[in-house]
Amino acid sequence: MHSDAGGQPHDADLMAAVTELGSALRELVDASVRSTVPAAELRAAAADARTVTARLAAAQRPVTQLPELDDPAVFRRVHNPVTGVGSALAPPLDIRREDGGLVAEATLGPAYEGPPGYVHGGVSSLLMDQLLGSAVLAAGLWGMTAQLELGYHRPVPLVTPLVLRARVVGSRGRRTSAAGSIALATDPERPLVDARGEWVTPRPESVTDYFAAITDVSGQYAPPGRR
Amino acid sequence: MHSDAGGQPHDADLMAAVTELGSALRELVDASVRSTVPAAELRAAAADARTVTARLAAAQRPVTQLPELDDPAVFRRVHNPVTGVGSALAPPLDIRREDGGLVAEATLGPAYEGPPGYVHGGVSSLLMDQLLGSAVLAAGLWGMTAQLELGYHRPVPLVTPLVLRARVVGSRGRRTSAAGSIALATDPERPLVDARGEWVTPRPESVTDYFAAITDVSGQYAPPGRR
Repeated sequence: MHSDAGGQPHDADLMAAVTELGSALRELVDASVRSTVPAAELRAAAADARTVTARLAAAQRPVTQLPELDDPAVFRRVHNPVTGVGSALAPPLDIRREDGGLVAEATLGPAYEGPPGYVHGGVSSLLMDQLLGSAVLAAGLWGMTAQLELGYHRPVPLVTPLVLRARVVGSRGRRTSAAGSIALATDPERPLVDARGEWVTPRPESVTDYFAAITDVSGQYAPPGRR
Repeated sequence: MHSDAGGQPHDADLMAAVTELGSALRELVDASVRSTVPAAELRAAAADARTVTARLAAAQRPVTQLPELDDPAVFRRVHNPVTGVGSALAPPLDIRREDGGLVAEATLGPAYEGPPGYVHGGVSSLLMDQLLGSAVLAAGLWGMTAQLELGYHRPVPLVTPLVLRARVVGSRGRRTSAAGSIALATDPERPLVDARGEWVTPRPESVTDYFAAITDVSGQYAPPGRR
């Protein structure tokens, strides 16, 4: 068993296996987008993928039950679509603290394409929503996105190292503001995209209402939030 | 060969195969997030997935070359991360015209989760960016996202039918404004999330600059834009 900073101990072998599957699926998604094999080969790949699906579907959790490796008290989410080590959708962003905020590097492949050669504008907003929300968590607060605004100044190139930054810029009652940007790793001071948003900590009665059905693997009520 | 409204004819058999692989990969991603099989089974699934990857990677396009099935003149993009039939990341949104705008239905599984039981706020912004941009295209214009603003009024539940709407609300020179919302299919008039943004048609010299390296499958320069 292994323990994160502040989190419940978790099964390190299971974590390694979830991470390995996440990596393999990200490589598969990337290959599917770049592939130029003939139709018959694509169909064979689809059939093989369905065999893998059947293997994984042999035992499943209900969607209201958190994955065994998740810990809502430290916001550890292994299948988060931006940061989750097990998520085939996530780059995944590897976030660290720096200079009173958060920073992450990413290089996005053609699976994230919008205009030819560039990152989809909605993918930039997806990454920024997560990173700004993570900055709110890192500041010892938490909340759900209430507002998000993005300014797109220049297109964000694919297959190019990017640097993403976020920090809390204000807090009042249950509302916390955060701001951040996406830039080229080689030109980090010139934002390609900037983002600003507000996160609101739900009232206790809203937490109860929103997350009434959510349990951990043992069946215990497990809403998100500071303990 | 098959022809879309206004698009170049395409290979219908290849389109069917790309669509089949996209479906199979979306099912695999969903199974990977719900799975509770032991670590050894996850590792076996990862190894099998890598075999599928190797099959697909046998022939690959450079990222500057559009997929054979894409047609930039009608904005047909088979691997678009929101609408692409071949994208493992996309729900995919199936968009239709209605009442002077666009509408799409979607039901999002746990791969798109943010707060437990709810769609990630950034996923809502990803879908809205695409749908609003598609509304700009459907109005006979086109552009790249310049600004996007989202208001999150209530959490968007997972595994629940949703209705997404978008329409153009203004246009001036190269700038077009669009607005839209996400609501429950059972309560379509009460937005859970609303969105508003601006799309800018790049100047011809910017198109040349941004898309200089982009070619179709025959090697011809193929930037996006109205022909």
